[in-house]
Amino acid sequence: MTVGRTRWIVGVDIGGTNLRVGRVPLEGGAPPVAVRRRSTRPASGSGQVLERIVAMIRESVAEAGRDNIAGIGLGAPGPLDPESGVVAETPNLGWRDYPLRDLVAEACGLPATLDNDANCFTYGEWWMGAGRGCRRLVGITLGTGIGGGIVIDGEIQHGASGGAGEVGHMSVDVRGRRCACGSRGCVEAYASGPAIAARAVEAIPAGSDCILASLVDGDLDGVTAEIVSQAAAAGDRYAGEVLRDTAGILATAVANVIHLVNPEAVVIGGGVANAGERLLGPIRREVGRRVFGAHMRVCRILRGELGESAGVIGAAGVFRRAHHGCP
Amino acid sequence: MTVGRTRWIVGVDIGGTNLRVGRVPLEGGAPPVAVRRRSTRPASGSGQVLERIVAMIRESVAEAGRDNIAGIGLGAPGPLDPESGVVAETPNLGWRDYPLRDLVAEACGLPATLDNDANCFTYGEWWMGAGRGCRRLVGITLGTGIGGGIVIDGEIQHGASGGAGEVGHMSVDVRGRRCACGSRGCVEAYASGPAIAARAVEAIPAGSDCILASLVDGDLDGVTAEIVSQAAAAGDRYAGEVLRDTAGILATAVANVIHLVNPEAVVIGGGVANAGERLLGPIRREVGRRVFGAHMRVCRILRGELGESAGVIGAAGVFRRAHHGCP
Repeated sequence: MTVGRTRWIVGVDIGGTNLRVGRVPLEGGAPPVAVRRRSTRPASGSGQVLERIVAMIRESVAEAGRDNIAGIGLGAPGPLDPESGVVAETPNLGWRDYPLRDLVAEACGLPATLDNDANCFTYGEWWMGAGRGCRRLVGITLGTGIGGGIVIDGEIQHGASGGAGEVGHMSVDVRGRRCACGSRGCVEAYASGPAIAARAVEAIPAGSDCILASLVDGDLDGVTAEIVSQAAAAGDRYAGEVLRDTAGILATAVANVIHLVNPEAVVIGGGVANAGERLLGPIRREVGRRVFGAHMRVCRILRGELGESAGVIGAAGVFRRAHHGCP
Repeated sequence: MTVGRTRWIVGVDIGGTNLRVGRVPLEGGAPPVAVRRRSTRPASGSGQVLERIVAMIRESVAEAGRDNIAGIGLGAPGPLDPESGVVAETPNLGWRDYPLRDLVAEACGLPATLDNDANCFTYGEWWMGAGRGCRRLVGITLGTGIGGGIVIDGEIQHGASGGAGEVGHMSVDVRGRRCACGSRGCVEAYASGPAIAARAVEAIPAGSDCILASLVDGDLDGVTAEIVSQAAAAGDRYAGEVLRDTAGILATAVANVIHLVNPEAVVIGGGVANAGERLLGPIRREVGRRVFGAHMRVCRILRGELGESAGVIGAAGVFRRAHHGCP
């Protein structure tokens, strides 16, 4: 190998809205370069989505020179089986029992790995982000859904059937809101982006001309979690109440995770986490009321550091671990 | 070593009510022999409790011959630090920053290990009980308190400060009952023995002559979880309702554990679990409604097989692992 030549992993973050592809140095330690983002456009069909992913990877490979690419790390919404590389079911993308890893590997002529997107987020933050150096790290992604991952001693915990770390479907309200998964009181049923929006809309009394309603010109179908956040910042009482309640739900989830895993850090990312300290501050205070001091003192509750690159970095890190050993 | 000679570990299960000491074959595979049980009598003072424990161990050692004893495994209520062998605080027993492991080891002239009682239960059931052969096992003990333990690949998961697997303080009811730990909605606040009794008493309307009240001759202070169970079996509606609700709470806790750990089995033990299938049946059905089919299919929900010996066996197993490697 020529001295100074950089070897790369292509990291791929497949979301329901966006595809992101970037190159991460095999040795880590630096942010990904040449990150491309395109719309996923799932309505175009699962074959089209695959073609778009492959085209983006090929561009990235060509740019660096094929000989400088070690392989491809893929992160996708689950449930999926990292061993076989098969996506069990992703309703958003129309994939079912879909051998995504091998299809991409064959199309690109490079070895590939596949893992769940929330696991990739957590692994990325462990490898190069807020969770560096932690023996035990839990990651939570707050977005359209709520995902989670657990990394212990540098290994993603997959569990017996790839389902470990499913923070979003932990129930914190035994008789609470019905969740799309069929259970009740799941964290996701309260604190995902759409759930925050729905709860805020429910909270507005009929015909009220509150700040939240005015922000969407009275069209409550247009309310999003971000608009709820804006309304709360502007003093809207309904939005404020829903956000306080959301922080309480998330704090209970984080406390439960600490009770089970007793980690050195919990890293929170995803779109909803863009609210930053306005969300994290109340979460930390409430977790402190729910967790024994000894376990709280060893555990930091942090916002992810890698922003929108976490998934790309984590997917590349998973490839690195599988083919080149733990960093 | 003489052919056929059996080597033993002395297993010690220290509870708030009873002390149990027995010998477990170093090679495993057989139940403990010569199990002694004595009252803990914590009111006699922490020094007296230690003396009683040491006397029981010495009897057990003398019986087998000192040369045939590899060492001592201790299990005690937490929180405690398995590394240093120090019990941080056990209000029931009056121990605080108490170097239990080294005190016992010195008094008996044998090497010793110390771990949390619920961890020992889980490790025992993994080594010789219902959880044999599981890569990932979660144990839950239902008694005066609710404890939990996680064994992955033959290793007890202690977490960053010895607090992992604390199933009893997972909250399943964000705004629910206040728990002695300071949090709200903890599993222990609903489903421990004393909590079941307290909830049943609360459920009885003033002056009612229900079956439950008649079982204690109207002295509701005498209600225990076992009496609630008897009353429910005899058709008492208040007791029946509390037990159904308890099964729902425990099912939610088990479902949460499955969502985070995705184990091959959850083993439930402790006095409250003596209700057997009357409790486990409803728990299994409700967990099935709360967990994705793929993760449910790989996970058995079982009653512990080792009964009152689980703690003795598990404590011995922890010693075995530390000094002789994983079975």
